[in-house]
Amino acid sequence: MGCGMKVSVIGASGRVGKAAAFSLAEESVVSEVVLLAREKSLGRIQGEALDMNDAMAAKDIRVAITPSSNFEDLAGSKIVVITAGAPRTSDMTRMDVAKPNAKIIAEYSRLIAKYAPESIILVITNPVDVMTYVAYKASGFPRSRVIGLGNHLDSLRLKNLISKHFNIHVSEIHTRIIGEHGDHMVLLLSSTSIGGILVKDFPQYQSFNVETIVDKVKNAGSYVINKKGATEYGPAFAISNTVKTIINDEKRILTLTTFLDGEIDEVSDVCLGVPVKLGINGVERVISVKMTDNELEDFKTAAKVVKKSTEEVMASLDEDVKD
Amino acid sequence: MGCGMKVSVIGASGRVGKAAAFSLAEESVVSEVVLLAREKSLGRIQGEALDMNDAMAAKDIRVAITPSSNFEDLAGSKIVVITAGAPRTSDMTRMDVAKPNAKIIAEYSRLIAKYAPESIILVITNPVDVMTYVAYKASGFPRSRVIGLGNHLDSLRLKNLISKHFNIHVSEIHTRIIGEHGDHMVLLLSSTSIGGILVKDFPQYQSFNVETIVDKVKNAGSYVINKKGATEYGPAFAISNTVKTIINDEKRILTLTTFLDGEIDEVSDVCLGVPVKLGINGVERVISVKMTDNELEDFKTAAKVVKKSTEEVMASLDEDVKD
Amino acid sequence: MGCGMKVSVIGASGRVGKAAAFSLAEESVVSEVVLLAREKSLGRIQGEALDMNDAMAAKDIRVAITPSSNFEDLAGSKIVVITAGAPRTSDMTRMDVAKPNAKIIAEYSRLIAKYAPESIILVITNPVDVMTYVAYKASGFPRSRVIGLGNHLDSLRLKNLISKHFNIHVSEIHTRIIGEHGDHMVLLLSSTSIGGILVKDFPQYQSFNVETIVDKVKNAGSYVINKKGATEYGPAFAISNTVKTIINDEKRILTLTTFLDGEIDEVSDVCLGVPVKLGINGVERVISVKMTDNELEDFKTAAKVVKKSTEEVMASLDEDVKD
Amino acid sequence: MGCGMKVSVIGASGRVGKAAAFSLAEESVVSEVVLLAREKSLGRIQGEALDMNDAMAAKDIRVAITPSSNFEDLAGSKIVVITAGAPRTSDMTRMDVAKPNAKIIAEYSRLIAKYAPESIILVITNPVDVMTYVAYKASGFPRSRVIGLGNHLDSLRLKNLISKHFNIHVSEIHTRIIGEHGDHMVLLLSSTSIGGILVKDFPQYQSFNVETIVDKVKNAGSYVINKKGATEYGPAFAISNTVKTIINDEKRILTLTTFLDGEIDEVSDVCLGVPVKLGINGVERVISVKMTDNELEDFKTAAKVVKKSTEEVMASLDEDVKD
Repeated sequence: MGCGMKVSVIGASGRVGKAAAFSLAEESVVSEVVLLAREKSLGRIQGEALDMNDAMAAKDIRVAITPSSNFEDLAGSKIVVITAGAPRTSDMTRMDVAKPNAKIIAEYSRLIAKYAPESIILVITNPVDVMTYVAYKASGFPRSRVIGLGNHLDSLRLKNLISKHFNIHVSEIHTRIIGEHGDHMVLLLSSTSIGGILVKDFPQYQSFNVETIVDKVKNAGSYVINKKGATEYGPAFAISNTVKTIINDEKRILTLTTFLDGEIDEVSDVCLGVPVKLGINGVERVISVKMTDNELEDFKTAAKVVKKSTEEVMASLDEDVKD
Repeated sequence: MGCGMKVSVIGASGRVGKAAAFSLAEESVVSEVVLLAREKSLGRIQGEALDMNDAMAAKDIRVAITPSSNFEDLAGSKIVVITAGAPRTSDMTRMDVAKPNAKIIAEYSRLIAKYAPESIILVITNPVDVMTYVAYKASGFPRSRVIGLGNHLDSLRLKNLISKHFNIHVSEIHTRIIGEHGDHMVLLLSSTSIGGILVKDFPQYQSFNVETIVDKVKNAGSYVINKKGATEYGPAFAISNTVKTIINDEKRILTLTTFLDGEIDEVSDVCLGVPVKLGINGVERVISVKMTDNELEDFKTAAKVVKKSTEEVMASLDEDVKD
Repeated sequence: MGCGMKVSVIGASGRVGKAAAFSLAEESVVSEVVLLAREKSLGRIQGEALDMNDAMAAKDIRVAITPSSNFEDLAGSKIVVITAGAPRTSDMTRMDVAKPNAKIIAEYSRLIAKYAPESIILVITNPVDVMTYVAYKASGFPRSRVIGLGNHLDSLRLKNLISKHFNIHVSEIHTRIIGEHGDHMVLLLSSTSIGGILVKDFPQYQSFNVETIVDKVKNAGSYVINKKGATEYGPAFAISNTVKTIINDEKRILTLTTFLDGEIDEVSDVCLGVPVKLGINGVERVISVKMTDNELEDFKTAAKVVKKSTEEVMASLDEDVKD
Repeated sequence: MGCGMKVSVIGASGRVGKAAAFSLAEESVVSEVVLLAREKSLGRIQGEALDMNDAMAAKDIRVAITPSSNFEDLAGSKIVVITAGAPRTSDMTRMDVAKPNAKIIAEYSRLIAKYAPESIILVITNPVDVMTYVAYKASGFPRSRVIGLGNHLDSLRLKNLISKHFNIHVSEIHTRIIGEHGDHMVLLLSSTSIGGILVKDFPQYQSFNVETIVDKVKNAGSYVINKKGATEYGPAFAISNTVKTIINDEKRILTLTTFLDGEIDEVSDVCLGVPVKLGINGVERVISVKMTDNELEDFKTAAKVVKKSTEEVMASLDEDVKD
């Protein structure tokens, strides 16, 4: 299966990394998935690979699962997913882990640029908006090939909450969270619809408490980390979703972190979550979405906050990433 | 597969009937599909059943495919699909076939009420809005369990056209055609969205010619009939889609023909296509959608036209259906 | 979906052709399927394409379905399926249609060699063993890239019959029919197993009447043609099965017609059905299977019969195919 | 999805338990999966449930995932999977954990008998052959409804190794490991086949080292535990595989632990892994497989060893389980 497509996951010894690698394998998205980790974690990912192979036999799937600590094995990857980074414990903000993670991302991005120069980078490491910027600069890739996963997962969580409240299948819900994957996320309520019908016009809307919902989405990650120690399945399948969209050239509109250059008024030189059209070449274009004045205001605030963090983080990095 | 669910298709010797039966089998929607046809067509559906079984072996699917001309075999069906009726050739309107078909639908509906009194009836036969009314009256079933497929297929065709024009994956398109499955169909342009973004705000909208598109949807059925002699795959998968939604209790919002009783102002005692929430018990509720004045006007026109035809057709039937 | 793979079906206006094209599209095996037919049938396949597209919308599948009468559109095909040929009515033997079909196959094979020189040819047209030989010679392709579908379908039919008799899931049955796709087919009973257990050691074996079963398999095609006018679903999904195995490089062992060159003692310069290992490059090798003396005897008889027919048919063709 | 089927997993806070629950949800096998754990682990499984729900949104799947520490929530379960038990670290044998686990299994089996008296019990806890016996006795269920998963996973591992050695798709491999899920497992080499062809007759057989292979299968679990701390994906998908076979009444022949009562000569009153025909009512029958003298000898040894352990373990339990 997978038509010869190879995808690599850096940080595959971590919980999100291994779950993402597994979902790519078991959903027949790829024909080879490379599990990459540092030398000291090689044993761990070798164990993962064997365990995963047992599951593949149960599902009658043929896929190569390759554990490796040698970055030359990135060669030929269509997509490289970076999940590596210091783990975020429940008392840490996404920003607490920014500077150490930036060093890691910069290092890996350069390795990717060296060994898989035609690949698309998908950044998962938090704070993802800042890290996507780092990967963009460090890899030297065009913006279309450096993508961050953050608001896609937030949007999925929001879809779930709406689906439950209205008791309607999740596939009928169209909603987006944009901006920062963090406290300054912006819920696009004005364009949220159920079965194509604006949520505001939907029966039961009066009992739909937006603020509670936004809070739940904002805290969903921390909630899961608090309860089970880490997020795992949610990010993993948001990743396989995104990878599938790229590999099959599906032209879907996902909410992903991308480098903005003025597509939204006054916002440039920063990476943020916005709706993008995604296909085999990565981000084909940013899709501008009509916002209310409040939504736009909030988005600009998110842009300012993320830009400031990005500048701080970039200042902490070596010269050669900064240009 | 299919968890013990049985679905019957009446008219399985016809092109739509057999294609629908086949799609139900090969998508593992059901564990038994009964192909029903009149005695004279029994040989034909026996051939279909064997041919279908060969395909099941190729797909490693276990499903019972039962050809029969005995209506007692309806017993235990969760859903009965009626595709029987005089064939519509390309020079006929949907109305030309109304009266003869009404007799057939009334007969079958009474047989269904007799042998599968807990089932849900899904009417495909044209003119579907009128035929759904006939089935509703003749079966004596509650309105939630008598459904017509018409605008769901129209809506799928429209989704396709929009998907192609904007080069966006069809799953991102939310749009509906309501009203009559015929000349008085109403395109809900005002609530059409792509990836949750209103089509009017989408790039390339200026080159999107609504009237051409509506014409294409209206003529899609005739076009296919002209070219290949009958429609087949489109209706079949619109049917399996609908059946799946019911059987798995998916709570999707599909555009189906249902009996209206004032949910939309001034419209009652007529069957028309509207968005409905669909689950294991059939139609859970009509979902009212905000229309522009023009859209509402057109919908009321459709209601008048269909009601008039329905009255004519009902008058032609035996007394015992009419009450 | 389909990772950029393109497959073409020649003869897509016929029942098997269109059903095969449709199954390739709806199972997400390919990203483009080309429906090829002669100029006079162009309208028909245009109707098929639109009808199929409606079904794709119902299944949320993105695939290009291209009707064409221009053979230049073969360019870039990974596989070309040939289903074209004079239709076989129920009173005709597969041989009755051999000579006229050979001319057609030869013509198309040369067109394939011209426009899709790297493709794999999958021959469906009957008598398929002879036609595969014709395609092999006329295309000039290596034997690994010219394959005939015949005994794969017979084997699926046999699997079905065994599955029903023993009431065991069809995926547990391993059995093969080899030799001619016709009267001289050879059932490999000695290596038939259920869940890995030889059928002879299985409970209920005493009530398993081999001769009746073989007769049923031999007559399955004629039975279906008699009853419904043509075979359709069975061949279609045997085709999509084979195409999928190639495209995904699955390394399965299917029973397909291939050019034999002494792999089985005394049998050479003839195309016959045998187990082959199939992957992205077509036939990787013939897998020799242990036969009882009777089975081997029957296989050699099949070889003789097919070889004689092949010689007759080849003699009727133009000089340039024969070398 | 899942047609109203509910499955419960006891021990869902453990790695295998949660992975099994997740695989049941994401493969649309069930419409509700209950995650059961003791009170102290309730927070953990609440976190799992939310995390899993995020993934369901990414896959457009509608399924109820219910975390609970209340065993009344077992009510209505079609199948109850028991994964609870003291964890086995890599330096422990399966037997080291036998007595404490037996107490746990006995307790849960009685709760299942109380709250879900019509369910099927699927035991995962090790030593699984002994634990299945405990569950059988403690639940008082008929033997058809108490099943252990052990050799099915071993068999999958063996399939994988054979698939890799011969470079053939895993679905073509039919092989079984029976007897004990432990050191006395018995590889049925004599009936191992590839594509229906006996492995001994297959090309490359001379380089196939059976002893090395058996060692690898025996140590696969320990290897994974050593490397990554626990087995997870392999058991999870072997479980979902088994559950699916039951729920969809698939009539497959899986190698599962079942109570033997003389089906194999001299072996009775012990639970061991053998090929069974599995359907909606659980184990329909033991399928006897022809063994070589050596294989049979080894199987009887396994029977003796497991019977002895079982007796020891049973002796350590309360009176009321023993009868």
